[in-house]
Amino acid sequence: MYKSISLDSYHVLHPRPVYLVVSRSSSGRLNVMAASWVSPVSDEPFLVALSVWKGSLTYQYIRETGEFTINIPSEKQVNMVFKAGSISGREVDKLTLLGLKIMPSKNINTPGLEDMLGFLECKVVKEIDLDESTVFIAEVKAIYVREDLYTKYGWDLSKTRILLHHAGRGFTTSSRLILAEK
Amino acid sequence: MYKSISLDSYHVLHPRPVYLVVSRSSSGRLNVMAASWVSPVSDEPFLVALSVWKGSLTYQYIRETGEFTINIPSEKQVNMVFKAGSISGREVDKLTLLGLKIMPSKNINTPGLEDMLGFLECKVVKEIDLDESTVFIAEVKAIYVREDLYTKYGWDLSKTRILLHHAGRGFTTSSRLILAEK
Repeated sequence: MYKSISLDSYHVLHPRPVYLVVSRSSSGRLNVMAASWVSPVSDEPFLVALSVWKGSLTYQYIRETGEFTINIPSEKQVNMVFKAGSISGREVDKLTLLGLKIMPSKNINTPGLEDMLGFLECKVVKEIDLDESTVFIAEVKAIYVREDLYTKYGWDLSKTRILLHHAGRGFTTSSRLILAEK
Repeated sequence: MYKSISLDSYHVLHPRPVYLVVSRSSSGRLNVMAASWVSPVSDEPFLVALSVWKGSLTYQYIRETGEFTINIPSEKQVNMVFKAGSISGREVDKLTLLGLKIMPSKNINTPGLEDMLGFLECKVVKEIDLDESTVFIAEVKAIYVREDLYTKYGWDLSKTRILLHHAGRGFTTSSRLILAEK
């Protein structure tokens, strides 16, 4: 039986993949935040949507440079990802605090991160204003993946687990591959 | 080590939750499709983004009525979900074919589905044109969940598994709860 729940229960669409978004200010400062409100929205060209709260430093930086990288952490990085999502970059250099090392991008000036499963270089092509947040639609300019963990069908689920955010401190991961019947 | 992969590899952002989207034409016909390019984009009000290919019947129906429901299947429904994603509603009545039963909505005229983990009533507030696809931004007007499977922290991951789409016939599910350190 269904029950009706309150309209602020957005966690009904979780667990969902969680990423580290690296952004850069016009003066070159970097920030990182955890983000789970991310989705592909087009395949040709490959466009992604990223929703960002307007009060965040990431919002300010993306507005300044129109760039970001989406970095894909593994389940082993859950504690770091939670910290990335619960501290503001206004007070501290989050990349240093979290021990994150950058890796240069090729098509944009905002770097990705080392020691992830992979990362995507993204360049904003549209902004959708939603009062408290903005949805950035960005074109993916390059994709990098750990070569030992990626197959032509995507992540090798027998070798790695994708980290998913549930609610608050709660996370989970992907599980084994299930093949639907033809 | 990272390797660079081709720009059409959108599966790098999969596995991700997969839903059944029910839409309705102005004449009252219903259709259902599988969709994984869905994300919350605002929490107050609760808005969701849904990317739909413009060639699809669902696109046509949502344009006609500005409504849809997002239905959350469980892992047991993987074969049905794959079928919902690989057949067009132009030739057949997909709801009948898939054995889906509808459940009336309260705030919109497009129904949800029975026997899911839950569903959301959605009303379009914005459309973003992306050439081959459109992103519908919709306000969530009601949320229903299986009362035995939902807690105040979201889905009870010890009792249910959320179905995630990987690539093609490949799916996976959520796993056990992991609590990040404070």
